[in-house]
Amino acid sequence: MLIEVDDRTDPRLRDFAGLRDAQLRRDEDRFIAEGLKIIERSFAAGCAPRAMLLQPRWLDGLAPLLDAWPDVPVYVGSEALIEQVSGFHVHRGALGSFDRPREASLGEMTSGRRLIVCEDIVDHANLGAIIRVAAGLGWDGLLVSAGSADPLYRRAIKASMGASLELPWRRMNDDGELYALQDAGFRLVAATLAPGSVPLGGYRPGERIALLLGSEGPGLSDAWQRAADDRVTIEMTDRVDSLNVATAAAILGYALR
Amino acid sequence: MLIEVDDRTDPRLRDFAGLRDAQLRRDEDRFIAEGLKIIERSFAAGCAPRAMLLQPRWLDGLAPLLDAWPDVPVYVGSEALIEQVSGFHVHRGALGSFDRPREASLGEMTSGRRLIVCEDIVDHANLGAIIRVAAGLGWDGLLVSAGSADPLYRRAIKASMGASLELPWRRMNDDGELYALQDAGFRLVAATLAPGSVPLGGYRPGERIALLLGSEGPGLSDAWQRAADDRVTIEMTDRVDSLNVATAAAILGYALR
Repeated sequence: MLIEVDDRTDPRLRDFAGLRDAQLRRDEDRFIAEGLKIIERSFAAGCAPRAMLLQPRWLDGLAPLLDAWPDVPVYVGSEALIEQVSGFHVHRGALGSFDRPREASLGEMTSGRRLIVCEDIVDHANLGAIIRVAAGLGWDGLLVSAGSADPLYRRAIKASMGASLELPWRRMNDDGELYALQDAGFRLVAATLAPGSVPLGGYRPGERIALLLGSEGPGLSDAWQRAADDRVTIEMTDRVDSLNVATAAAILGYALR
Repeated sequence: MLIEVDDRTDPRLRDFAGLRDAQLRRDEDRFIAEGLKIIERSFAAGCAPRAMLLQPRWLDGLAPLLDAWPDVPVYVGSEALIEQVSGFHVHRGALGSFDRPREASLGEMTSGRRLIVCEDIVDHANLGAIIRVAAGLGWDGLLVSAGSADPLYRRAIKASMGASLELPWRRMNDDGELYALQDAGFRLVAATLAPGSVPLGGYRPGERIALLLGSEGPGLSDAWQRAADDRVTIEMTDRVDSLNVATAAAILGYALR
């Protein structure tokens, strides 16, 4: 259903208004896909579209996907209008609003063998990069703490190249879920620079592991470090103080896969 | 030598003017350190300061370092002035201009055992992340092709957390330096998704290797792939199309270190 729009205050565009404010988004029942590729991946992941806001040039490419959803409004406007509505420069001028998929249950999480658990990772680019590498390296799922960023926030999906829509994930109700993972047979493996941790090259992971990754600045909290069964560290020179958390996730994710 | 400044057109501030234009920077005889931490690392790496442009609040912290350089002008201005001069919002309001250190010679490069060679990597964040991980994991040096970004561009240094100043690196005169590496006993190892490459987990690196990493979009050129002695690929699921080049560098850099 094509609808031309030219008024940035048009109430029908509310799904796309003020997208720069990440705080407002987490509890909503939808997510925003930015750019043709992520929109295509959202359809491919089986997500139900609510509305599109596009420059006219994307219509042909999306037509085959939209044919199956004749009732979904497709708002067509200029690049300037899309920027005015959303509040930011929209990469390649295409936005899709989709119903937010259900998060995985704890039971679904524990049916796998390799999980990543993020404590208060707030940077969307880092979280997206972690999701991309976890999905790419065959990890089964991702848990994020209550204080972590939203894997389905626009920029996190983009940084994940759409893998946020493929990899099962859930937001933890509370830190007690760490113990539920242990009860389900997972060893909690803390990635840490703390003294006394095992060099990664000498660590032999068990059958089921949950890799705990800490936030960008301080790393894992004392509580999470104490909860861990094992502590591993990536062997490093003294030429750098630390590695970026997404970089560490890539190295650990490959070595422990 | 403290000098208060309040005129954004002050010619003495030329080192700090118009820093957003990356194209102009590569051939200059200086580099710009952004933020107190990177300025400190530049001093620690033995780089000679040319001038500073700071908010007053950073003076105390830098005083011990600047004491050794009484002739270096330290321009002190407001956050707004620094933004007007540089053309961007300066993270934490401190800029340092330093003499550009000499690049490593090819002979210095080939005295090591583990080198990374970047073909046309143009994204400063990716290049900086590769340098950070290479330095952190103990690689001996980095070569960049003629078309690659500048490891000493402000944002690359920042993304490397200052490792650009620690890890020996050089810009290749031409692709012929690949053969010079081979002549010096290095096996050229191409990171590639091409069919017929060896899964990383089954690859045993030789005594001396140079890891070839391709640009963000197309990957390694045909010419570089042909020049390689070995071709390795990171084992991946079909949930993602590819990994980010800095992510791939982290995985390969750890596995082949």
